[in-house]
Amino acid sequence: MAISFEENKAFDVIAFGRACIDLNAVEYNRPMEETMTFQKYVGGSPANVAIGCSKLGLKAGFIGKIPDDQHGRFIEQYMSSKGIDTSQMVKDTEGRKTGLAFTEILSPEECSILMYRENAADLYITTSEVQEEYIKQAKIFLISGTALAQSPSREAALKAVHLAKKNNIKVAFELDYRPYTWQSREETAVYYSLVAEKADIVIGTREEYDMMENLSSEGDNQTTIDYLFQHEPELVVIKHGVDGSYAYTKDGKSYQGKAYKTKVLKTFGAGDSYASAFLYAILSGKDVESALKYGSASASIVVSKHSSSEAMPEVSEIEALIQENNTYV
Amino acid sequence: MAISFEENKAFDVIAFGRACIDLNAVEYNRPMEETMTFQKYVGGSPANVAIGCSKLGLKAGFIGKIPDDQHGRFIEQYMSSKGIDTSQMVKDTEGRKTGLAFTEILSPEECSILMYRENAADLYITTSEVQEEYIKQAKIFLISGTALAQSPSREAALKAVHLAKKNNIKVAFELDYRPYTWQSREETAVYYSLVAEKADIVIGTREEYDMMENLSSEGDNQTTIDYLFQHEPELVVIKHGVDGSYAYTKDGKSYQGKAYKTKVLKTFGAGDSYASAFLYAILSGKDVESALKYGSASASIVVSKHSSSEAMPEVSEIEALIQENNTYV
Amino acid sequence: MAISFEENKAFDVIAFGRACIDLNAVEYNRPMEETMTFQKYVGGSPANVAIGCSKLGLKAGFIGKIPDDQHGRFIEQYMSSKGIDTSQMVKDTEGRKTGLAFTEILSPEECSILMYRENAADLYITTSEVQEEYIKQAKIFLISGTALAQSPSREAALKAVHLAKKNNIKVAFELDYRPYTWQSREETAVYYSLVAEKADIVIGTREEYDMMENLSSEGDNQTTIDYLFQHEPELVVIKHGVDGSYAYTKDGKSYQGKAYKTKVLKTFGAGDSYASAFLYAILSGKDVESALKYGSASASIVVSKHSSSEAMPEVSEIEALIQENNTYV
Amino acid sequence: MAISFEENKAFDVIAFGRACIDLNAVEYNRPMEETMTFQKYVGGSPANVAIGCSKLGLKAGFIGKIPDDQHGRFIEQYMSSKGIDTSQMVKDTEGRKTGLAFTEILSPEECSILMYRENAADLYITTSEVQEEYIKQAKIFLISGTALAQSPSREAALKAVHLAKKNNIKVAFELDYRPYTWQSREETAVYYSLVAEKADIVIGTREEYDMMENLSSEGDNQTTIDYLFQHEPELVVIKHGVDGSYAYTKDGKSYQGKAYKTKVLKTFGAGDSYASAFLYAILSGKDVESALKYGSASASIVVSKHSSSEAMPEVSEIEALIQENNTYV
Repeated sequence: MAISFEENKAFDVIAFGRACIDLNAVEYNRPMEETMTFQKYVGGSPANVAIGCSKLGLKAGFIGKIPDDQHGRFIEQYMSSKGIDTSQMVKDTEGRKTGLAFTEILSPEECSILMYRENAADLYITTSEVQEEYIKQAKIFLISGTALAQSPSREAALKAVHLAKKNNIKVAFELDYRPYTWQSREETAVYYSLVAEKADIVIGTREEYDMMENLSSEGDNQTTIDYLFQHEPELVVIKHGVDGSYAYTKDGKSYQGKAYKTKVLKTFGAGDSYASAFLYAILSGKDVESALKYGSASASIVVSKHSSSEAMPEVSEIEALIQENNTYV
Repeated sequence: MAISFEENKAFDVIAFGRACIDLNAVEYNRPMEETMTFQKYVGGSPANVAIGCSKLGLKAGFIGKIPDDQHGRFIEQYMSSKGIDTSQMVKDTEGRKTGLAFTEILSPEECSILMYRENAADLYITTSEVQEEYIKQAKIFLISGTALAQSPSREAALKAVHLAKKNNIKVAFELDYRPYTWQSREETAVYYSLVAEKADIVIGTREEYDMMENLSSEGDNQTTIDYLFQHEPELVVIKHGVDGSYAYTKDGKSYQGKAYKTKVLKTFGAGDSYASAFLYAILSGKDVESALKYGSASASIVVSKHSSSEAMPEVSEIEALIQENNTYV
Repeated sequence: MAISFEENKAFDVIAFGRACIDLNAVEYNRPMEETMTFQKYVGGSPANVAIGCSKLGLKAGFIGKIPDDQHGRFIEQYMSSKGIDTSQMVKDTEGRKTGLAFTEILSPEECSILMYRENAADLYITTSEVQEEYIKQAKIFLISGTALAQSPSREAALKAVHLAKKNNIKVAFELDYRPYTWQSREETAVYYSLVAEKADIVIGTREEYDMMENLSSEGDNQTTIDYLFQHEPELVVIKHGVDGSYAYTKDGKSYQGKAYKTKVLKTFGAGDSYASAFLYAILSGKDVESALKYGSASASIVVSKHSSSEAMPEVSEIEALIQENNTYV
Repeated sequence: MAISFEENKAFDVIAFGRACIDLNAVEYNRPMEETMTFQKYVGGSPANVAIGCSKLGLKAGFIGKIPDDQHGRFIEQYMSSKGIDTSQMVKDTEGRKTGLAFTEILSPEECSILMYRENAADLYITTSEVQEEYIKQAKIFLISGTALAQSPSREAALKAVHLAKKNNIKVAFELDYRPYTWQSREETAVYYSLVAEKADIVIGTREEYDMMENLSSEGDNQTTIDYLFQHEPELVVIKHGVDGSYAYTKDGKSYQGKAYKTKVLKTFGAGDSYASAFLYAILSGKDVESALKYGSASASIVVSKHSSSEAMPEVSEIEALIQENNTYV
C-alpha cells in the first residue's frame, strides 16, 4: 500500500510544535556535575524533524512560538539557514523563554537530559496564531505529542489537526512523549488517543503507544492497530528500540525494519532522524519496507554524532549506509 | 428515523458535569441590589436534566464532583431524594466549593445571573474518578458543554465520552455554553467540535452551534448538519428561541417544533427542561416530531415557575399541555 | 494613659480591607442543609467596624475593592447610606466577586461559616490604589489582618501602614485572623508581627496573638506585651472570650474588662462591634477602662441579634446597657 | 564610627538567598546568537558574596534552596569546596530547577543577561526551612533583595531577618535589585523599605535606593539617609557606578570611595565582589574609609576576569591593588 499525497503543494512537510535549545556536554562520558562547557544546538523533536526533512531535500515549514531574545533569534536564523520556512514562527511577547535541554552523556547507553521547560514559549502558541491558509499548503502536517501537553498550545494543536483534516491534508502524529509538563498518564492518554484517531500516519515507540492506551504493562501491537484502524489511520509505525520497528497498513499488511549497526555516542535524536527519513521515503513514493530502512539508517547516523539537529544526514549518506549494510544487527 | 437503544441497562440516562446551587431572588421584578432574601435550589444544567428525567420516570445516574460541605451535602441529599443514583458523585477533598448562581429577575424578559464559579468543585473531577463500568450501564450518556471548560474536568469528560463510544453507549451532547470559565471563543470551538463529532445526539441553540463553528455571525442550520453528519451524529436539535426548534436526522429528514404559550416568570431552566423531556420521548420510542413537542411543553412549564430543578414537570403535566394546545404560539 | 489624636482631621477612622456579603440563615437552629432561605447583609470585619463607628457618630471612610456587580453596588450603597465615605472603594475590573459568608446557626454556641473567598475582589486592591492624601486625613487608620493574607492586597496594606506612620497617623491593627486564604501559620506570623510592631493600637483574641507569635500552645499576655512594647505599640488589647478582655498600655498599666450578660443568638460580629465601640471611646477621650466597657457592651448587643452590620448599636444603647449592668457576668 | 560585632560566633557571615548557575559566553565581544559555547560557573549575588567572603578568609555559611539535580549538586559541591558551610542548603523536592544566567558580552560596556528564573528553586525556600539556631551563630546575616521578590522565599527571608534582629545579629541588606520576578516597582518599594528599616547595614546602588523609595527620578543621598537613620540602620553604602561610592554612618559622618582603574572585560560580579570585600574589612575592624577601598579594589579585579564567583580575589590581591594605586580614576 502506498499513501497518496496531493501534488502542487508549497510544502512537503509542515511541522508543528517546539523548537528549543540543546546544550550538549562538551566534556562527556562523565556526570554533568563535571561538565564545565556546553555546546549550543537547535533542538526539540518537531524542529529536528523539519531540519532533517530539509536536509533530505524536502520543502519544510514550521509553526511554533519562540521568544524574542537571543536564543529565539538563534533558532529562527538557524532553521531559516537550513531552508525551512519560518514565516509561521511567531514571537512571544510575554517574556517567556525557549525550552533548554542540558544533555548528560555518562556513557553511550546512559544518557539523560536536564530539562528547562517551565513556561517555555512553544507551549504558549494560541489558536489564533494557527492559519488555515498555511496548513492547506502541506502534503503532510506533522504534529508532535508534546504540543498537546499544555494549554494553549494544546488547543492550537487540536485546531491545526482539525484544519488539516478539513482540508484533506495528511496528518502525521509523532507521539514524542516527554514526561515533564504532562499532569498524569491518564491526561496523556486522553489527548494521544483523540489525535491518533484523527491522524493518517502514527509513529511512536511501543512505550508511547502504551501511554496512548493508558496501559500499565506493555501492550501488543495487534490490539493497538485493531483500535487505530477503526478510525482514520492508514499507516502505523511502532518502534521497539534495538529490536527494530514495525509498520502496519490499513489493508492488513505488516512490515518489519531492523536497526543498523553503528558506534553509538549517545541516544538523543534517534527518533527525530528516524521520522524525517521515514517521511522523506514515503513522500518520495517509496514502499513502506524501504521507508523503514531509511528511518533506521538515518537514526543510526545521528546517534553516532554529537548533536541531533546538526547531525541530520543527507540522502546520499543514508543510501550509502543502506547499501553497505545488507548485514543488519 | 428512530434511534435504537440497548435494552437491559441499569440507567436510562447518566448525566455528567456540574451540580450546583441556585439562589433565586425571593423578591423579584427588581434589581438584585434590592433583593434581600434568596431561596436555595439545586441547579446546574446536567443536574437539572437528571432531575427532570427522574421526575419523568426515567432511571437517572449522575457523575460529578461536589464539596464536602453543607451545600454539597444538600445537593446530594436532594438529588438522591428525587430518585437519582448519586454513587458517582465524588467528594472534593481540597476545600473547593459548589458553584453558585444568584438569579436576578428584573422582568420576565430581563433575567441575569451573578455567577460564582471560581474554583468550583465540579470542574475538578479527574479522569481517575470516571468509571467505565458505570458508564456501560447507560442507554444515554449525557455530557454538558460546561464540563469541557476547564481541566481536569475537561479530560474527565473527554475520557467519559471515549468510554461511552467504546462501549456503544449513545452520547447526547448538550452544548450548554456559559461564557465564564472558558478562555476564548476559539477554545470553546475546539472542544465543542471534538465532542460534537463523536456524539450521537447534539442539542443546542443556534448561538451555541455558532460557537462550535467559531462563527462571528449567525450560521445556517444546513451547514451545521452537513458538517456534523459527516461524523458520528444521527440526530441534531437546533433551538431558535421563541421561533421554535428544529430537529435533523442523518437520513436527511427535518422536523420543526414550536414554542407553547405560557405566562413567563423567568427564562432560566428552559433548556434543561427541554432536554430532559426530549430525551424522555426519544427513549420512550416516540418519534422525533413528538419529542420536539415534549421538549417545548416541558420548557414552557418551567419558565412559568420560580425554580429550575424543583419545577421540573411530570409526564402528565406535559401531556396535558400538549393536549390543550393545538394552538401553537 | 490616654492616647492623643490630631485634631482637624476629616475622618475619625479610615478602615482598610474587605467589605463582603453575609448570607444569614433565615431558618436557624438547624444544619444549613435544612436552611432554604438566606438574608443578605453587608459583612467583613473592617466594613462592620466602619459601619459600627459610623452608627456611633464617628466620621468613617473606607479603602477597599469591590466588584462592579449587583453585590458590589449593594455594598457601596449600604455603606454610603450609613454615612461612610466610599470614595476610596475602587471597582474591580477583572470580573472578581465579593466574598460570601453563609452562616450556619446550629445553636447559639455552635455557629459556623461556609466561606466563599476564592478570588475575592477585596484581596486584589493594589498599591497604586492606596492614596497618601486620603490616609493623611484620618485620626485612626484601621487595618484588618485578613488584608495581609494575599498579594496584592498584602502589599497595598503594607504600603498603607507605611504611609500612615510616615504621616503620624495612629495605626490600629485588628488581628482578625481567618484561616482561609493564609498558606500557613508561619506565613501569618511573619506578617502579623511585621504590622503589629508598627501599629500604635493592637486588638485581638489570645488565639490571634498566639498566631502572631507562632506559638503551638497558648501564650501569656506578659510575653506578648514585653515583645510589642519594644516596638511602636502604645495600647494592646487581648480578648479572652467569655473571660473578658485585657488592655495594656506602654506606661506599664493594665486593665480588665468583663463580658456583659446577654441572650446570645449567634457569635458572629462580636469582635467587630467590640472594636468599633472601643475605638469610639478612645477617640472620645474616655479612659481605657471605660473603653473596655464600651467594647463589651457593644459586643453583647450584636450577638443577641441576627446580623452583624445591621445590628451595630448606637451610643445610647451601649450606655444604657452599661448603666443597667453593674453586674458583670 | 566602627560597628561592633559579637565575638565567639561560628560564622562571620551567613548569606541568604539564591545560588544559581552562570553560563558565560566562551566566545565573547559578539551577540549571544553567535556564541556557540558556554562555560558553567556558580552565580547568584548572595552565593557570590559568600564565595568572596570565604576566599578572603572569613567563615561563611549559606541558607538557600537548590534542586536535587546535576546543577544543584554542582553548586553545593563547588561552594563546599570553597569552604562554605552548606548544611542549610535544602534540596527542593518538587522538581524545580536552578536559575540560569546566560551572559552576553557584546563589549566591555554592553553586557546583558538572558535569565531563566521561572520557578527557580531558590524562591521556594519556606519559613520552616529557616532555623533560628543557625542564624544565631553569625556575626553578620546578609540578605539579598531578590530573596524578597516572591513567596515563599519572601516570607522565609522576612522570618530570617526577624530572627536575626531578635538575637541581636547584625543584618546586612544588599539591595540587589533584579527586575524579573518582581511584579511592580511599588511592590519592590514595599519590601525593600520594610527590610531596610530593620537592617543595620544597607548596601546598594543609587538606582536601587530609588527603587526602595519608589521614586520616578533620581533621589538624593541625604533624603535616603534621613529616612533610614530614623530606623535601625547604622551604616549605609550608596554606590554611584564609575563615580565611586559613599558610606554614611548614623553618627553623621560620610565617606567617599573611588573606583580603581582596570581593564574591564565585563560588568557582572562587580557588586558582589564589592560587598564581600567591604564586609570583610568591616569585620576585620578596619575603618569605613578603608572598607570602601577594599570594596572598590575587589570589584575592579572581578570585572577584569571572565567569571564572577571563580574570579573572587584573595586579600593579598586586593591589598596589592590598593598599594599600587594611590592614583584613583
